[in-house]
Amino acid sequence: MKVSSEYLKQFTQDVFERMGCPANEAELAADCLNQADLRGVDSHGVARLSGYVRLWEKQRLNATPQLKLVHETPSTAVLDADLALGLVAGPHAMRLAMDKAKQVGSGWVAVKNSNHYGIAGYHAMLALEEDMIGISMTNASPLVSPTFSKSRFLGTNPIAVAIPAKEEPPFVMDMATTTVANGKLEVLQRKGEDAPQGWAQDKEGNPTTDAFALKKGGAMLPLGGDREHGSHKGYCLGSMVDIFTAVLSGANYGPWVPPFVAFLDPPANPVGDGIGHFFGAFRIDAFRPADEFKDHMDNWIRTFRQAESVQGQPQVLIPGDPERLLTQERQQDGVPMQQAVIEDLEKLASKFELTFNPMQYA
Amino acid sequence: MKVSSEYLKQFTQDVFERMGCPANEAELAADCLNQADLRGVDSHGVARLSGYVRLWEKQRLNATPQLKLVHETPSTAVLDADLALGLVAGPHAMRLAMDKAKQVGSGWVAVKNSNHYGIAGYHAMLALEEDMIGISMTNASPLVSPTFSKSRFLGTNPIAVAIPAKEEPPFVMDMATTTVANGKLEVLQRKGEDAPQGWAQDKEGNPTTDAFALKKGGAMLPLGGDREHGSHKGYCLGSMVDIFTAVLSGANYGPWVPPFVAFLDPPANPVGDGIGHFFGAFRIDAFRPADEFKDHMDNWIRTFRQAESVQGQPQVLIPGDPERLLTQERQQDGVPMQQAVIEDLEKLASKFELTFNPMQYA
Repeated sequence: MKVSSEYLKQFTQDVFERMGCPANEAELAADCLNQADLRGVDSHGVARLSGYVRLWEKQRLNATPQLKLVHETPSTAVLDADLALGLVAGPHAMRLAMDKAKQVGSGWVAVKNSNHYGIAGYHAMLALEEDMIGISMTNASPLVSPTFSKSRFLGTNPIAVAIPAKEEPPFVMDMATTTVANGKLEVLQRKGEDAPQGWAQDKEGNPTTDAFALKKGGAMLPLGGDREHGSHKGYCLGSMVDIFTAVLSGANYGPWVPPFVAFLDPPANPVGDGIGHFFGAFRIDAFRPADEFKDHMDNWIRTFRQAESVQGQPQVLIPGDPERLLTQERQQDGVPMQQAVIEDLEKLASKFELTFNPMQYA
Repeated sequence: MKVSSEYLKQFTQDVFERMGCPANEAELAADCLNQADLRGVDSHGVARLSGYVRLWEKQRLNATPQLKLVHETPSTAVLDADLALGLVAGPHAMRLAMDKAKQVGSGWVAVKNSNHYGIAGYHAMLALEEDMIGISMTNASPLVSPTFSKSRFLGTNPIAVAIPAKEEPPFVMDMATTTVANGKLEVLQRKGEDAPQGWAQDKEGNPTTDAFALKKGGAMLPLGGDREHGSHKGYCLGSMVDIFTAVLSGANYGPWVPPFVAFLDPPANPVGDGIGHFFGAFRIDAFRPADEFKDHMDNWIRTFRQAESVQGQPQVLIPGDPERLLTQERQQDGVPMQQAVIEDLEKLASKFELTFNPMQYA
């Protein structure tokens, strides 16, 4: 079943408002989840809405936060998000980074005491409006083992970078620092299929193709999969994200990162506050005239698009292409919804005395 | 045969001086190559010296460059390296980034018109002296194909990040954005062994285990190896490096990056000047008190060191551990040298009327 993305967005906004979020913040948060649905990151869209509600019910999430500036220099800042939705703290922090970039060429904002911020790319892409390069990272529930280990010490810790072009669409990368995002394993679970080697390991740290490995105490693997294929590099990248987002900001890092799921309590003896994000903005014309840069970006993109394909394989894609094409499709045809997610939203509607009746918009 | 690293460094400095480099720049460049030898990146140490000499002979490298500031803001700058050794341009640019970080919290310097800058980590680590986080990237000779393609459009485009700790050694990551660096394939070639799947592809873009694939018109693969294992993420990272180092600075990017080997001419119709680098520095106390940060870094490092090992696998390593241990060993026992490299250095000695007689220091 496909549902209009506008309908989903409005419903999401209504739920956040019923939680007590101010209307403008509810709208911002709904837009962030909606962009995930449009861009095909189904695990980070409206399917996650009830997860935020459960965190709020456990008082681990503050619907009326007062974001506080903890420290700043002309090009940097640390924000205490006061347990806000990351969906709200993220854009706020990103815009602060952009304001700093306007003043001094670049801006960097580390955020502590936050919650899950949706898709990393949403925040990075805000910079595109102002001819800036945007960077966004977050740490996340520890589900990933460092190379050689069976301890779950890192999240999927994504990195997103958005770079403007002129006539071509922007370059937008948004990648978990693991071989695959958790959502890819969930797809296989639903289909009852095995995972390729290199995606996960079992509880003892052995390679496995069991798509349910994570639920049985196993772990996801850093990008690279195993040492021979460079998993230590994925481990480096995930660690860098953990340090930038949490050790710089004063959030929890490593095994202390509070889990997104409300049925798991955060670890005792936290080493910081909430989870951490990190945002950056470069003003293009802090390096060279924006027009000149964007001409070269167009050339870069067109050159790579014309790379010679391997026989039987698709044309080379530019980072951001698949999500942009899917957005066009879903804006027109609606967002495909699983029955379980629809039922979840119906329960939310009932809890908050709202109506969720997507059939009429299907 | 093992040779004293001091002897190798002095010889390297002598060669650069005979090329006409000012003594202080020759020493700096020699130190950069020497650190590669000590850290075990043998492909980027003294073994590469004759390569720089050949570029100089072809007038593609300027021994007496005048580095020019092309543009700056309080937190950013673009440098024209005037075809300098990247080994000289790199530290110069990194220190400029650090100066800017002192003033406004962070500093970012893009460099164009440069040459190969040795190991990325060398430059990033300069920031450690000043309680800063250092970041270093460069583009490089195009040997890597984007996912789905057989065109060689990217270099191994490394990313290095150095982060200070207090009692623990610093966190130092320094990684090619490919499954492995080219030097790893060269090791297998010398041993006559095959490469694992996922390291390289043949001329047609098919997976191969031929360690000589690159020399037969094949390509190296982005970190991840294939689409199923996330090679599009390695492609994203390598592309980001290409854009930050070259499109921001005005250097050549993609297939236009001039090859390091002097026997291949740079592509006609360049899109910029020379190759590009990108450096960044964050002052730790632009985010939180340095002491507090470094206490948490110690805790991060100790926690990860104590991660539970998989049976039969080594203890978890912290990025920078292997290189640090090797440095200690090689400072004491000398740098292992292959006969071919020794002969290469003997030829350089003869060309420049120097003495290369490592036996007496072996």
